[in-house]
Amino acid sequence: MKPEYRLHFAPDNASLVIRLALEELGQPYETVLVDRRAKAQRSAGYRALNPNGLIPVLETPDGPLFETAAILLWLAGRHGAMAPAAGSADYAPFLKWLFFASNTLHADLRMLFYPEQYIGADKAQQAQLQSVLRQRLHQHLTNLDRAAAGRPAWLGAPQPSVLDYYLACQMRWMALYPADADRSWFRIAEYPSLQRLCAGLEHRTAVTTARQAEGLGAAPFTSPAYANPPEGSAT
Amino acid sequence: MKPEYRLHFAPDNASLVIRLALEELGQPYETVLVDRRAKAQRSAGYRALNPNGLIPVLETPDGPLFETAAILLWLAGRHGAMAPAAGSADYAPFLKWLFFASNTLHADLRMLFYPEQYIGADKAQQAQLQSVLRQRLHQHLTNLDRAAAGRPAWLGAPQPSVLDYYLACQMRWMALYPADADRSWFRIAEYPSLQRLCAGLEHRTAVTTARQAEGLGAAPFTSPAYANPPEGSAT
Repeated sequence: MKPEYRLHFAPDNASLVIRLALEELGQPYETVLVDRRAKAQRSAGYRALNPNGLIPVLETPDGPLFETAAILLWLAGRHGAMAPAAGSADYAPFLKWLFFASNTLHADLRMLFYPEQYIGADKAQQAQLQSVLRQRLHQHLTNLDRAAAGRPAWLGAPQPSVLDYYLACQMRWMALYPADADRSWFRIAEYPSLQRLCAGLEHRTAVTTARQAEGLGAAPFTSPAYANPPEGSAT
Repeated sequence: MKPEYRLHFAPDNASLVIRLALEELGQPYETVLVDRRAKAQRSAGYRALNPNGLIPVLETPDGPLFETAAILLWLAGRHGAMAPAAGSADYAPFLKWLFFASNTLHADLRMLFYPEQYIGADKAQQAQLQSVLRQRLHQHLTNLDRAAAGRPAWLGAPQPSVLDYYLACQMRWMALYPADADRSWFRIAEYPSLQRLCAGLEHRTAVTTARQAEGLGAAPFTSPAYANPPEGSAT
């Protein structure tokens, strides 16, 4: 039987979060490699799936879905797992931090990785933007770490949530990217509750499967190494 | 009876979107003015509600909720209106554009309005950042306008969605802010489907009520004027 889901991915891109969620949910899916070296995500064919030209897209029975956090929330709702049920008292706090992770943490991360898309080609201006972003990201992580310290059911609990995987991947990327800029600002031990969250995930079968599929190394969240994927390119 | 909801607001801030949704849903609420001139949103008391120090916060029976789009989605789900039902075929496309409006459109808008929070005090660098952001925002609006042209049930339909109000407010703010920078780039007529969406909302009772409460003028979305609020300050 053809799987219901088709994930357009590049290794170690935001599509990784969706792969992890699908694995954790036990949902079968096909993958389609997006060739970043050829900028395939900007092609007309890909833009028909996502006009914004960004990875990932998840093709679903309800059409092509994009925006990492939208896909996560939709999958969790559809399969009744990995997030508090809508209507439960945990749903409101889960939702506010999921949006924060998307529109503040991830948005700032995108700028740190691709400053030229926001400030243009001047290297000194890019460095200045990145310098402020590092301070912002540290503050965001500090706030998230405090939220995780309270051990809510949807952040760092034994049964992982989609938000857990989203944050763990973002922490991985902060440790690794951009490869040519200062990364010493990011010290995972400064966020002990998030570090515990990351360590907890690394024992999951979903992570083992994703590590092999995208060449992520032994400890992809707590001690990440650059991806060495069997197919495609991370950048 | 004490209302279930308590909205921490400043006039013509992101809290306006929540006020409009509560009015449209017919839900009673109290308001608490956040004194922006005194930077009350950065106070310890306010940070106990939202550690990120941003407006709005909506106090609910499930605790204080922040992040504009999280509040919108939560309210729509709780009251079964203003968004496709989770599980319906319209939910996936609604969700992807709601997240886009939050993590891309609104995130870029925040940078346009507060460039110093991203690039520091240098005015020339701020201007460069804003110049790229204007091009990005035009592209985002173009993509959203195309999505609205297909007249989906959750974008510009006769029964407004939370996304409609979110976009209409953001277009209002693009026309008005930052007051001291070039705003000629924003021409609502370049986005005819979004313009129609904005015009449609201006006839709603919810908008009349919000206009009066926050001093928004006669055509707050299609021909906005600076707020002249009966209490508080927009900036």
